[in-house]
Amino acid sequence: MSHLAMLENPDQEVNSVMLVDGQLNYVAEKSATSSVYNRYEIDEPPEDRQADVERQLCTEKLLAQYRQHLQDKSSHHLGYPFNLELNVGPLQQFQNLHINNLGDPFIESNYGVHSRQFEVAVLDWFARLWDLPKDQCWGYVTNGGTEGNMHGLLVGRELFPEGIIYASRDSHYSIFKAAKMYRVQCIKIDTYSTGEMHYADFASQLLQNTGRPAIVNVNIGTTMKGAIDDLDEIIRILQDCGYEDKFYIHCDAALAGLMMPFIKHAPRVTFKKPIGSISVSGHKLMGCPMPCGVTINRSKDVTAVMSTNIEYVASRDATITGSRNGHAPIFLWYTLKSIGYKGICREVEMCIKNAQYLTSRLKKIGVSAFLNKASSTVVFEKPGDQAFVRKWQLACERSIAHVVVMPNVTTKMLRIFVQELAESRHAFLSRTEANIPCVAMDIGQENCLCSLHDVVVHHSRI
Amino acid sequence: MSHLAMLENPDQEVNSVMLVDGQLNYVAEKSATSSVYNRYEIDEPPEDRQADVERQLCTEKLLAQYRQHLQDKSSHHLGYPFNLELNVGPLQQFQNLHINNLGDPFIESNYGVHSRQFEVAVLDWFARLWDLPKDQCWGYVTNGGTEGNMHGLLVGRELFPEGIIYASRDSHYSIFKAAKMYRVQCIKIDTYSTGEMHYADFASQLLQNTGRPAIVNVNIGTTMKGAIDDLDEIIRILQDCGYEDKFYIHCDAALAGLMMPFIKHAPRVTFKKPIGSISVSGHKLMGCPMPCGVTINRSKDVTAVMSTNIEYVASRDATITGSRNGHAPIFLWYTLKSIGYKGICREVEMCIKNAQYLTSRLKKIGVSAFLNKASSTVVFEKPGDQAFVRKWQLACERSIAHVVVMPNVTTKMLRIFVQELAESRHAFLSRTEANIPCVAMDIGQENCLCSLHDVVVHHSRI
Repeated sequence: MSHLAMLENPDQEVNSVMLVDGQLNYVAEKSATSSVYNRYEIDEPPEDRQADVERQLCTEKLLAQYRQHLQDKSSHHLGYPFNLELNVGPLQQFQNLHINNLGDPFIESNYGVHSRQFEVAVLDWFARLWDLPKDQCWGYVTNGGTEGNMHGLLVGRELFPEGIIYASRDSHYSIFKAAKMYRVQCIKIDTYSTGEMHYADFASQLLQNTGRPAIVNVNIGTTMKGAIDDLDEIIRILQDCGYEDKFYIHCDAALAGLMMPFIKHAPRVTFKKPIGSISVSGHKLMGCPMPCGVTINRSKDVTAVMSTNIEYVASRDATITGSRNGHAPIFLWYTLKSIGYKGICREVEMCIKNAQYLTSRLKKIGVSAFLNKASSTVVFEKPGDQAFVRKWQLACERSIAHVVVMPNVTTKMLRIFVQELAESRHAFLSRTEANIPCVAMDIGQENCLCSLHDVVVHHSRI
Repeated sequence: MSHLAMLENPDQEVNSVMLVDGQLNYVAEKSATSSVYNRYEIDEPPEDRQADVERQLCTEKLLAQYRQHLQDKSSHHLGYPFNLELNVGPLQQFQNLHINNLGDPFIESNYGVHSRQFEVAVLDWFARLWDLPKDQCWGYVTNGGTEGNMHGLLVGRELFPEGIIYASRDSHYSIFKAAKMYRVQCIKIDTYSTGEMHYADFASQLLQNTGRPAIVNVNIGTTMKGAIDDLDEIIRILQDCGYEDKFYIHCDAALAGLMMPFIKHAPRVTFKKPIGSISVSGHKLMGCPMPCGVTINRSKDVTAVMSTNIEYVASRDATITGSRNGHAPIFLWYTLKSIGYKGICREVEMCIKNAQYLTSRLKKIGVSAFLNKASSTVVFEKPGDQAFVRKWQLACERSIAHVVVMPNVTTKMLRIFVQELAESRHAFLSRTEANIPCVAMDIGQENCLCSLHDVVVHHSRI
């Protein structure tokens, strides 16, 4: 098996690099990339004044072109769950300040150029959302979902040093990375074709390892399919299998943690249930300009196993990164303050409505598609045309691709997308004389419109 | 032993919280902080239009006050190695874009709104600085020195799963945090009073553990004293103790990695020597507005032990954080492009000159002070007056404090600082009837001006 990974030039040239047997030819890859990037090389400023001024103008032109390029890319972006509709408003004034929240958000350090007051306000907002009383809550603004997952699992491991991490195979790659990093055994649990955890497999794995505590990653919106693991069912199984208080649950709510509370009949993620931590991304639904996130823990856990007093910063260090981005909390604060719970609720409703719209349009043109309940992640047959995949920056896995409908995605954008997909697909299938691909393995027979399954479904209906 | 940690209100009120026996009373601390931060609480936007407009004006006023507060704080900041002199120039135009360099810097992912071309250019610049040929270099722009250290040590551990981490006790706290996180035994090596590693102790520890490989953290500028461990000596000792190729060296060059190459007669940190990785901070000398850094590895190591192909992003993941800040590389690129090697050289020379100036001024007023060779970190007797420490945001440890002279620190600022210190110290010593504190334990008898040691030094001179 070999396939082609495409390298894309920001200035529209395209290079290709072989991914042979799943392994990248590293040196070839790197030099190809480098040659594309040559015009960005950092040369020394010239001694000559006039030459320096000209060089500065060139730099500004390059930056302006790059900005135009980013805007073009943003307008054709559907694949990753990033909200690209940003309103920075009065926050522009902070851009030239180095703001650093080093140490613990709740404890002042000697360093004064920080934004802890905004960070604490954001944490309080999330604690309210997830029903954790202020005085039982600890957390911080992270550099993204990965850091939140790393932190949650580390708290779990420190509480249960002999624990095993259980995570469904549809979990984000950061979960498996963290397990490796922390030297903790990790058991992958099967999933249904919806992406949700296979509970019988979970129970069976638990029963084989009853001697050791369980550190469970619960997905509140899987990366690829937006599937939500059933927290209540997981807790019930843990108790049925005799784990009583010998478990720690981390909820990876990177994508849907902010959506769930606003969806009717969606399962509740709350600290009223015996969970240890929840982490969410800030650059997804909330549209922060840099990757960031929020992680919330029970303060008793963090105090028990994570705290180290650091005299140098006259603070404590219970975070992963120590020195922390002080701009991100201000962005999150401003967004939450501007739109409030109600505003988010409206955005979530719109995203889900638009996702339903996209799913039905795709099916109408004969493309296999699937949308989980309480999700805005539309999963569908992976387009055969690589140029189309790149243009719309689609995330792909095996036979499927997805579109994550975020607030900046309009129905107009979706209409254009579906039309272009229909055209590109028709051309691709004609050119390659291929059949409509089967996606039953990835999203189930009932959602597959390939010639085999569409007939079966059709027949069974009769 | 108990001492007082002060909580500072950004609006100039001051609260105090007890640090009892080195342990913070967490709940009390938190609620005290919360009450100070009340005006930042995120309330729901009102339904009423007029009320909403008024609320928006209040928010803008709050933000403007906060900006003023940050500027005041910046102008009295000396304690941490952050360059607060930022010139964002034409980069303002990117602030409202979500730029995300997810995955490997050298391999395009499907996500198009990235700044990899800037990141690669920055990495190339550093590879040149540290003599690593482009085709043997891998690295990425991190979220700060901590992430760089975590990454370097992880590569070391993966290459030598049975390895022991050796780090001097003056190493940054992230080294010990990483060891704990990675479940790797860590041996703390003694230091001289200069902050430099005690090489005889290092050799003796190595000899006690010859069965297991060594993962060595070498400090290129310790956090508190700016001390530089002797890389050549460390390599020699490793070889003398029979470690041959059974070692991995990570250089924590967070502070001085960018200064050393520009200081005459300073020891050379270079990939021509058998080191595995170097990491440096980007928000220190270079003055990036968010914590960030650069970590450079040998690509063969990363390819061997860190790479995982991630189909979802159609890229590889050999980083710690996965989704990565795309703004930081643009800032670093713009700074390096604007000032070049020569510009940095000028800034480094100025910082060191100003640090020498400060050291001599401090000694002149009778304050014990010490400055390492090739360093801009001035270590001196910890001021007794807490309000003074907070005003100048001094980092303190045991009996000492330090000032890290960065490019934004002017001689005028230093003159005012020394004058205020003299006044505050005189008042403090008179009020408390205390003697001049002895700092011999922390910076050596020869640098101590307390009544005991000053006399001894004086006598020995006679």
